[in-house]
Order: sequence, then C-alpha cells, then structure tokens
Amino acid sequence: MERSQTLASASLLLLISSSLFFTSSALPRRWRPPRFLGRFARLGVSNRATYQYEERYFRQPLDHFSFADLPSFQQRYLIAGVDAWALPSGPIFFYCGNEGDIEWFAANTGFVWDIAPRFSALIVFAEHRYYGKSMPYGSKEEAYKNADFLSYLTAEQALADFSVLLTDLKRNFSSEDSPVVLFGGSYGGMLAAWMRLKYPHVAIGALASSAPILQFEDIVPPDTFYNIVSKDFKRESLSCFKTIKESWDVLEAQGTDNDGLLKLSKDFHLCRCDVSLMLSCRCRYRNLNNTDELSDWLNSAYSYLAMVDYPYPSDFLMPLPANPIKELCRKVDNYPNETGILERIFAGVSIYYNYTGNVDCFDLEDDPHGMSGWDWQACTEMVMPMSSNKDNSMFPEFDFDYAAYRDECVRDYGVRPRPRWITTEFGGHDIKITLMKFGSNIIFSNGLLDPWSGGSVLQNISDSIIALVTELGAHHIDLRAATDEDPEWLVEQRYSEIELIKGWLSEYYKQKASCFIK
Amino acid sequence: MERSQTLASASLLLLISSSLFFTSSALPRRWRPPRFLGRFARLGVSNRATYQYEERYFRQPLDHFSFADLPSFQQRYLIAGVDAWALPSGPIFFYCGNEGDIEWFAANTGFVWDIAPRFSALIVFAEHRYYGKSMPYGSKEEAYKNADFLSYLTAEQALADFSVLLTDLKRNFSSEDSPVVLFGGSYGGMLAAWMRLKYPHVAIGALASSAPILQFEDIVPPDTFYNIVSKDFKRESLSCFKTIKESWDVLEAQGTDNDGLLKLSKDFHLCRCDVSLMLSCRCRYRNLNNTDELSDWLNSAYSYLAMVDYPYPSDFLMPLPANPIKELCRKVDNYPNETGILERIFAGVSIYYNYTGNVDCFDLEDDPHGMSGWDWQACTEMVMPMSSNKDNSMFPEFDFDYAAYRDECVRDYGVRPRPRWITTEFGGHDIKITLMKFGSNIIFSNGLLDPWSGGSVLQNISDSIIALVTELGAHHIDLRAATDEDPEWLVEQRYSEIELIKGWLSEYYKQKASCFIK
Repeated sequence: MERSQTLASASLLLLISSSLFFTSSALPRRWRPPRFLGRFARLGVSNRATYQYEERYFRQPLDHFSFADLPSFQQRYLIAGVDAWALPSGPIFFYCGNEGDIEWFAANTGFVWDIAPRFSALIVFAEHRYYGKSMPYGSKEEAYKNADFLSYLTAEQALADFSVLLTDLKRNFSSEDSPVVLFGGSYGGMLAAWMRLKYPHVAIGALASSAPILQFEDIVPPDTFYNIVSKDFKRESLSCFKTIKESWDVLEAQGTDNDGLLKLSKDFHLCRCDVSLMLSCRCRYRNLNNTDELSDWLNSAYSYLAMVDYPYPSDFLMPLPANPIKELCRKVDNYPNETGILERIFAGVSIYYNYTGNVDCFDLEDDPHGMSGWDWQACTEMVMPMSSNKDNSMFPEFDFDYAAYRDECVRDYGVRPRPRWITTEFGGHDIKITLMKFGSNIIFSNGLLDPWSGGSVLQNISDSIIALVTELGAHHIDLRAATDEDPEWLVEQRYSEIELIKGWLSEYYKQKASCFIK
Repeated sequence: MERSQTLASASLLLLISSSLFFTSSALPRRWRPPRFLGRFARLGVSNRATYQYEERYFRQPLDHFSFADLPSFQQRYLIAGVDAWALPSGPIFFYCGNEGDIEWFAANTGFVWDIAPRFSALIVFAEHRYYGKSMPYGSKEEAYKNADFLSYLTAEQALADFSVLLTDLKRNFSSEDSPVVLFGGSYGGMLAAWMRLKYPHVAIGALASSAPILQFEDIVPPDTFYNIVSKDFKRESLSCFKTIKESWDVLEAQGTDNDGLLKLSKDFHLCRCDVSLMLSCRCRYRNLNNTDELSDWLNSAYSYLAMVDYPYPSDFLMPLPANPIKELCRKVDNYPNETGILERIFAGVSIYYNYTGNVDCFDLEDDPHGMSGWDWQACTEMVMPMSSNKDNSMFPEFDFDYAAYRDECVRDYGVRPRPRWITTEFGGHDIKITLMKFGSNIIFSNGLLDPWSGGSVLQNISDSIIALVTELGAHHIDLRAATDEDPEWLVEQRYSEIELIKGWLSEYYKQKASCFIK
C-alpha cells in the first residue's frame, strides 16, 4: 500500500512551520501543518537530481562571532562547472541553501543550471548548517540533542558560513576577482538578500525569489498570508471559498457528535503508519482524538496548494495537476447539492494528498517525535506573526498570540525567542527609505498567488533594488527549470532576471578594468 | 614623587598595541609599546569630563548570534540632551565606544557635545563590552579570566550591542523615526563605519575619524604605519630623523658593553613603581635586563607623538606642547655636536614622557600582569600586519611574521587568531568597487600626520562616502572640542562634517515626509 507519508517525504522547502500556527489561546497548537522538517526536504525518488556535480566539504567554525572553544564542523557544498568556468575572473553562481538537504534544492533550482553555461559560471550550492549532511557535532542526533547543541543554528551564522566558504574557495582557485551572484528561494531567498546587504564585498548581487523578509514584527499585517491563500481560492471559485470557510464549523460540530470522531476518521481514510524503511511501511486504520489534527491537515493542503499553484503539472511537493486550486475547487463545487460539505472537502484535498490515486489512507502525523530545524529557528529568530481575519480569510478566525508562542518554545526547546532580533539585525521597517540610497543589485521576485508574497518586497526600492512581480506566479516558480509549458509571463520574468544579472556582471567588469584605486 | 606612570594612566585611546610589534623572529616581542589597556583609558584627573550626562545600563545578551545559555551583562551608556531633544523624531548622535572607559571618550570627543545643541540631538555614548564598567560575568577579573570568558569580546558583538541598544532606546522613547548619526574615532571610528555598512536601518550615517579599516591582511603595505611616523619626524628635521635612525644600533651596542645596561638605566632614569592607590606610588631605581624594553619605550613615544602631533598644546595622552614632534626634534638637534646620541634621544623623548618636568624617573612596565582587552582583540580578529622597511623608516628593519604572532597568541591566551576574518566579515579589499554603488553617508576623516591614516580611506568612494583629508591633521583631531587655537583647516574640516551631517538629516526627513511606501 502506497501512502501519503511517502508522498509527503518527497518534501517541501517552504517556510510553513508550526510558527505560523501558535495562535490564540482558544486554539492552542491548532492550525499546525505537517512538521517542517521531520522527513521534509530529503531527496525523494521523484526529485533526484539529474544535474552533475561534485560533493565537497569545508571546515567551518561553529561560532563565527565568538572565540569560544567549540568543535568545528564540515559544511557540505555541491560544485559544478569547474571546467567550463572562465578563470581567473569568471562568475560564480552561488545558491544559498535553506532548511533542508542541499541536493534537493539543487534538483529543484533548474534556473541556475539552465543559465550558468551561457555565463561560463561556476555553480556552487552550499548547504545550510544543521541540515542535510552539514551537521555540527558529527550527527543530526547529536546536533539536535538539546538547545545547547542547537544554539548555533542561526541565519547570521549561516551567512558567515557562506561568506567564509566563498572567500576561501576563491582564494584556492586564485579567482579573487570572480564576481559572485547569489540565488535563493523562500528562506534561501531571504538569506540571499540579506547576504547581499551584509556582505556586499563577497557577492555583487542577489536574486531573492519569494523571500518574505518583511514577515516580521508589525511590518506587514499578520493576516496577509491567509488572506492570500484565501484569495487564491476565491479567485477560482467563490462557492469553493465559501464551502471551505463553512467547513470548519461543520467539522468542529461533527467532532462533538456521538461517534463523530469515528465517522470523521473513516470518511477521511485516516491511518497510522510505521515506517520501517524509506519506502516500506505498514499502516493501520486509526481514530481521531480530536478535530485539531484534521484541521491542520486540511489547512496544510490549502496553504501548500497556494504556494505551488503552478500553471503546469508539477511534482515539487506532491504530484499535482496544472492549476491545482482550480482542480480542487472543481471537485468541491461539482458535487450534487445534497452531498455533505465534508465529503466535498475530502474530495477536494485529495487533489493535493492523492492526485495519483494510489494512496489508500492518510497518516496525519508526520514524524511527530522528530526535531525540526525550522521549528528551532522559528522558536529563536524567525518569529513570523500570523493571524486569520474574519472577513477575508476562509480559515477560522484567530489572532497571533506571542505569549503562547513563547511559552511553547520554552516548553519544547527550553529557549526564549528573540522576536525583535531579525529586524534589528537585518532591518525591514521603512525598507524603502533605508535602502533607497543604500545597497544595490538585488532582485526580489514574487508571484502574487504565493501567500509569502505578502511579506516580500513588491515595489522597486531603487534603480538596482528591483521588485519583479508576476500576477500569476506561485512560490519561486522562476527558480524552477524552464519547461515547454512555461507561460509567456514566466519566460519574460526569467529574461528580465538574466538581463539584470548580465548588467551587474558587465558593470562589475567595467569598474574592475577602469579602477586602480584601492 | 610624581612619575611617568601617573601620566601614562591619563590614558590613550589609540590602536597601538602589542599586535603591531610581533615582528620578525630576530626581534621577538620587541617594539612593544606600553600595554594597550592595563591602566589605559581610565579617566585620569586631567581628563575628567566637564560635560553633563546621565549614566545608564542596558541588559545585553552575551552572544547575539547564538542561543547558547549564557549570562547576560549590563552595558553602560551615557545619555544627555533628553530635555532639548526634538521628539518624536529629533536626531540621535551616537558615539561608538572603543577599547576603554566610555567616560574618557565622552570627555575627549568635544565635537559631538559642541554640535549636538544646534541639531537638538540626543547624545548617547555607548561603552564597548569588556571595557570600563560594561563587564560580562560581573567583574573585569572574571571577564578577563581566560579565553572562554573573553571569547565574546569581538567587534561584531559590539556592533550588535549598539544596534540592540539603539533600537530599544528609540522604542522606549517612541522615537522610532529618529535618525541616528554615528561617531567614532580610531577603533571607534572603525566601528562607526562598519555599523553604518552593516546596520543601515539603525543609523543613517557615520563620521568615522582616523579609522584604519584597511589595515588588514595585504590591503595596504604593512610598512605604512612606521613610514608615516618616520615621515612626520623627517618633515620637521632630517637630522632628527637620522639621529633616531642611528640610535637603535648605539643602544644595542651599549647594551652589550660591560655595565652598559646599568649605565643605560641611569641615563634614562629608570625605576620600578608599586602603585598602592591610583595616585600614590613608591618607586625604586632599577636596572634593565636587556635593551628591548627601552627600545619599546622609545618606539612608543615616537608613535604616539605622531598620532597626537597637534598644532596646539594638548593633554590627550600626555601633557604636551603644540607641535610636539618639532619640540622633540629641537631637543635632539640642538645639543652640541659632542653630546652622545642617547643623551639627545633622552632629552627628546622627555618632551613626551616628562613635558611638565615633574617626573623624576620612568617605569617602563605598565601593569605587566594586567590583561589587556585590546591585546585579546589583536590576538583574535584585529590582526594588523606591521613592518618597518630599511629605506623610509627610522625604526629598525623588521618584517611581519604571522607565525610568531600566532604562537604568541596561543601562548598568552590559548587562542588562535583568525587573520582573514575581518576582511571576510567587513570587506576592505577593492573597497572602491564594492562600495561605489553600495552604501552611503559615511565620512572617513583623516589627517596625514596620523600614522593610522595609511590604513584608512583617503579617497572619495562615491557621492556620499566621502574622504576628508587634512595635510596637517593628527589622530582624529576633528573629534576634539573646538578651541580658540584651531587652525583654519580644522575649522573648515569640521564645517564640512557638519554640512554633510545636515545633508543626511534633511534628506532623511524629506524622504520620510514624502514616502508612504513600506
């Protein structure tokens, strides 16, 4: 029996994390999507790289910003194109690894592979510390043991890793003059943008795709994420939107009925699976204890679908048809009137969880005991307030409750978040005024279907800090490999990106040639 | 008996540290000036502040870049001008404290006090962690106990301290819109420039005076510092330069004579003093064991004099006449021909060590057992290669020997320097190309008499990253309080600085008024 677990393990990449869902105390731990890591972002069979690269390791200090006597660790990076690289000053295209296995990102960032040859660029995909094989303390088990061991999992340390790696790499190749262009999507896009701002001497520019660097504190309204998800559904079908909006109360009510949970468990084909090996598992039917888990599961489907609402069939998170929200809504809407609301919902989300039709039952708990790196990051630096408002959201209403959020972090990790640290370290408030005459060569690319676009930079900041916005784009679609089915606007978006990168490079070489001043 | 110790304790501020003087293995530990801290940069009587401020404390995490379970500490800052401050968006003038007691920097940075009222600016002088009263672990004794405790004494942590402090301060005053202008001299100037680059969202501009941000790795030739010191002497008197250049061999030779060290000790009036209280001590005549200490002592006098070669009498490091190098050379040159070369040298450096004529004898060892914060910084991040070349320097020839430098750090602190870290973190190579279209609103002010000017930014980088260079200026003279004796070029320099700062502020307010975009 194939199962949803296996599909889920094909992995995400996205920022959805438990952090979004620590909400009002009325809804503790509700709206919790599948745990962010767990088996997330490992290289599934369907995503195995077709690109050729060499895997290398580089020794990094655990704390770049202190001289405490800590063990170093080996950072993994993938390198390709050495032979075609135009030394001594050909460009380096550097992908800023995010919260997962770097091979998965390499496999899913075809844009870099597609365009590097025409620039004779070296390609480097650097893994983020504490993910994939870049584990401090020798193993994930050790590294994730407790807060002491996890405490060096921060964005600033990751950026310093990237900068030290690049500086050393260039020295070893005697290519100190090579300009570096950064790439990144989602959290990786945030890192790319921040790295261009913090290390302008290391990289000449950054393409930050779907990078919600403004999703902190009060910079954007906390309801923006769920409003966009909801708008994506409303756009396809108002009745679909309404059905989903109504479904939560129905679900809640049914959960309180006699045998209601039993019926829900059956109707939604729930099971619990023991995974013995990667692709083999045994599943048994199970009953819900409450409706929260099921709500989370539905929420995840809607949110992820909004992210990957691509105009062609894809297999990024799950195997999906083109325009999957349209397909989901077709299912929800096209049942005869008398069909129960929850049956429609089940039929709809099956587009997400079971498009292949091969899944017999669904396990809602994805690795519940696994420690997730992103959960740690959300509990320390990456505090992104989220809420759902009554009017525009199809989700149940809830406010962001920082106290509950903090308490959960203290309980789970023994760590207190620093909710204001990211904006202190990287800025975000008044970004236009701050960067209008400061910084250069950053592309913030976003598709407005992507719920993360609400926390991203959607307007040009200056002549060279550019927002590329597409009406119909979803989560960093521009970073994916070109396909024959790419719509015109996507071809144009990528063309603009290539032209901008060309411009950065030619300006750099021109300055370099004319400039003999230290 | 008053003594040189007391005078020395009036303190420095400057970057001269043992780091400069770890040199060729032929001259191990030679050219070592007085230990950088020790009793350095404490508030001496003659430097006691005449400015009014309030002393406050702010709780800081020890490691901003990890979540390790470390004790927080209390950072001291001085605050003034709250009543005159034009709330809610009046400017904040923020001094980036360097390696010493912040009250001493407040007392010696009259420029900020002079100009703040006309801007209705709040004044903040923030102390650097591990200096003055801003001690982690409760006391200097604890904080300086060993490498583990000292390991959070880094420039990046200090910048994060400043940023967190400012962000919190503004929030508490509900003055989030207040523009911050940074000030700093010497290492504090480096911090001001780096902070503007790293935290453009926290501060709109920086006046970085005498900030040798390029004195790292191979960015500037390692002999630049001693070449400039030497040029300062040659400029006043070629014969003085020659006498000093010849004196080292004479000193060395005399040290190997029978009773040579005894004679030297007498001729140079050397003693050893026990300090019981701040200003009371007992001194006994002593003999040299070798000539190295004496050479270091002479070297210090020349180097410091080059830094404080101000055109008016000053009491910055020591009570000194106007143009003290000219005075020193007058002494050296005006002895009758038959006078011994070392007698002339002694007479000369007495301008530095004993201008008041009140000192009976000189103790070469300044707090030999004290741990120096700057020595730690030099042994970790602040590796500034220094050498002395045969042709242009009046000092003995020596090369920079990194291996010896490193070994000494391992021996003294149990820590290995990261000699390439500063340029990886803050840049420096190709600074013009890097910052030509990146960054804004920094003034690098330098006087060419200052030996640190050789490692500073001496050319405009862009329209708003400006180098203000004065032919006759010494170490951050522009930051000192205005006096009636200020030469015209200094008045003009300060005027330019004020105009530039005015420009930053008016541009900021204009943007703020016209800009309603997030």
